[in-house]
Amino acid sequence: MKAVNGVHHIGIAVDDLDASIPVYAALFGSTLEHRDTVEEQGVEAASLAAGISRIELLAPLAPDTPVGRFLASRGPGLHHVAFEVADVALELDRLRRDGVRLIDERPRRGLFGLQVAFVHPEATGGVLAEFVSDDRH
Amino acid sequence: MKAVNGVHHIGIAVDDLDASIPVYAALFGSTLEHRDTVEEQGVEAASLAAGISRIELLAPLAPDTPVGRFLASRGPGLHHVAFEVADVALELDRLRRDGVRLIDERPRRGLFGLQVAFVHPEATGGVLAEFVSDDRH
Repeated sequence: MKAVNGVHHIGIAVDDLDASIPVYAALFGSTLEHRDTVEEQGVEAASLAAGISRIELLAPLAPDTPVGRFLASRGPGLHHVAFEVADVALELDRLRRDGVRLIDERPRRGLFGLQVAFVHPEATGGVLAEFVSDDRH
Repeated sequence: MKAVNGVHHIGIAVDDLDASIPVYAALFGSTLEHRDTVEEQGVEAASLAAGISRIELLAPLAPDTPVGRFLASRGPGLHHVAFEVADVALELDRLRRDGVRLIDERPRRGLFGLQVAFVHPEATGGVLAEFVSDDRH
């Protein structure tokens, strides 16, 4: 069984997106791929290429947003990990059959046009894990 | 400039290694690659293949160890991210020239025979980041 292709990106919560982009770009020799503000998720995000993976920087638009609450309770740092799969819907079927608790019961449109679904951290020992299918490449 | 090849593994702090291995194996369709106890790092670790990336599960041998203190303060979850590079020593030279604060000034032998070095979280906005060169494959 080969469910995931590898780590698609790691999500990092930051206080200040403008200040963080050049820091991560220099650290990992990364280049900015995408940048977007998604009001309904309360987040401003930037995707940096890191070889075949990506770093997704997430800054909250307000304190009372998922990333804002994360920063308030844990401070900046690793927020989630996203695994690339061929078909998010098929993975969700597989997980549902195994009784895994999900945040998203169906794939939804995530940042930068990705198809995404999140698994509940309760099912993953405290890790916020995302499945992604990336039909952009 | 292409510094990193991609995410080599994500490190996850767990309370119970035996209980966690089958959970993560099922979640991500992963298979156990390596398992080892490293007394001097106070850790028992397991590496699970996740496509071309890996999940490294870390359980502390005692509360007064780096992973034990992490669990006590933050609970189980994402612990670090490791980026694969061709040559860890060259990356450290590059980071040192840029004034980046390092934990390891020289590459050292990490878990499972990898060449590794950690960057200080102060330099990475709270992210514990590792550079790895993997001459096992």
